[in-house]
Amino acid sequence: MGFQQESFYGRPIVVADRDMVESNSDEILRNARDEDVAFLVVGDVFGATTHTDLALRARQLSIPFQHVPNASIMSGIGAVGLQLYNFGQTVSMVFFTETWRPTSWYDRVGENRASGLHTLVLLDIKVKEPDYGALARTGKLTYEPPRYMTAGQCARQMIETEDERGGGVYSRRSLAVAAARVGGRTQTFVAGTLEQLCSQDETLGGPLHSLVLLGRRGHELEHEYVREFAVDKEKWDSIWAADYGRAE
Amino acid sequence: MGFQQESFYGRPIVVADRDMVESNSDEILRNARDEDVAFLVVGDVFGATTHTDLALRARQLSIPFQHVPNASIMSGIGAVGLQLYNFGQTVSMVFFTETWRPTSWYDRVGENRASGLHTLVLLDIKVKEPDYGALARTGKLTYEPPRYMTAGQCARQMIETEDERGGGVYSRRSLAVAAARVGGRTQTFVAGTLEQLCSQDETLGGPLHSLVLLGRRGHELEHEYVREFAVDKEKWDSIWAADYGRAE
Repeated sequence: MGFQQESFYGRPIVVADRDMVESNSDEILRNARDEDVAFLVVGDVFGATTHTDLALRARQLSIPFQHVPNASIMSGIGAVGLQLYNFGQTVSMVFFTETWRPTSWYDRVGENRASGLHTLVLLDIKVKEPDYGALARTGKLTYEPPRYMTAGQCARQMIETEDERGGGVYSRRSLAVAAARVGGRTQTFVAGTLEQLCSQDETLGGPLHSLVLLGRRGHELEHEYVREFAVDKEKWDSIWAADYGRAE
Repeated sequence: MGFQQESFYGRPIVVADRDMVESNSDEILRNARDEDVAFLVVGDVFGATTHTDLALRARQLSIPFQHVPNASIMSGIGAVGLQLYNFGQTVSMVFFTETWRPTSWYDRVGENRASGLHTLVLLDIKVKEPDYGALARTGKLTYEPPRYMTAGQCARQMIETEDERGGGVYSRRSLAVAAARVGGRTQTFVAGTLEQLCSQDETLGGPLHSLVLLGRRGHELEHEYVREFAVDKEKWDSIWAADYGRAE
């Protein structure tokens, strides 16, 4: 629910957190009439619609606000050695369930692939999910343990979706890069075919993971940089030579 | 040429600057065999091919390196209120001359527009350009004053290019947002048609400028956020209603 501390100017400042903006953003704004409120996020604050909405409502209430730009996965992913200029739209991948398997991202990946562009896939996280089973049994609200989608899970869901949709947007042998803890001291990259990346989670280690599906319009410099991370450099080279590095 | 200072660890550290990487990156790498070298850039280091190339050569020479991710215009542009998910590939605009008018960006904007996506246009800067006229006259190497492309110049070049190429990728009444000094305390946004943005440089103020050409797949939240910056809100609303905010 946020906490109070002194600001640089000696005025009280309320630090709001992510839970608070999703469940109780009215309170953030009500406080902001009388006090300075700081809202801390991971990444860049304008990377998420929720935060743009908060800023919009602050403006409507004539509450002034400033933001400090920050590193974001949207630009930080360049660390894998793929050029940011060659990325198309970013997509999100949610945990598939028996009944909920949204695939609108597949069409967007298709648009990127048609233009030869890379696609950054951001992976689902489930934190503070209510445990409805326990609630029904015990009457007490508790939370599921946090879950973070791995690059392997993402690769498997992508292959399943291609099998179901059959649009030929990509295949098991399409090249991709899995990235773990980008920008951190233990960041780890693994490159390979989508099929290979289904089983690289152990090498990648803990969360957060992301995945980039390569576009055909890759530059030779990208190939050379990324192949260092390849599960199998010979296979990487032969697939690249056959299908990638196409000029426009 | 860089300068020396103490690192946190008490070892000497050479701080290399942008001039040095473009003109003399071999020296950076040679030094790095014996000393710690820090290389400072504006934005995120992996946003530019030059830097990926430097990292690749360090790796080839078995020189270990680390990077610290940073805010970048590639993600910071979200501050205008357009969703980063709705951006396609980023393009660059160079200063047109009589004889040099590259328009490969036009095709890329066309791909983005065909998918309904926004396009971030990064604008040319000319710093430390040798003054060849003065060199011929005086025999001394001096430099031209620095030049930064304005959003107005960019909008004019975009309109000229559409007139020449005639692909109907956009028009004078296509909506766009001009952004100045994104992320700084004096950041300024102006929204309007490309035609309107040809003459808003005074409102925008000093460099650096960027421009975003909107895609049709805009969300209502984006419209509402950005219209605050519109030169003419009524015109913004009517063009939005007619041509934008299309679901997929």
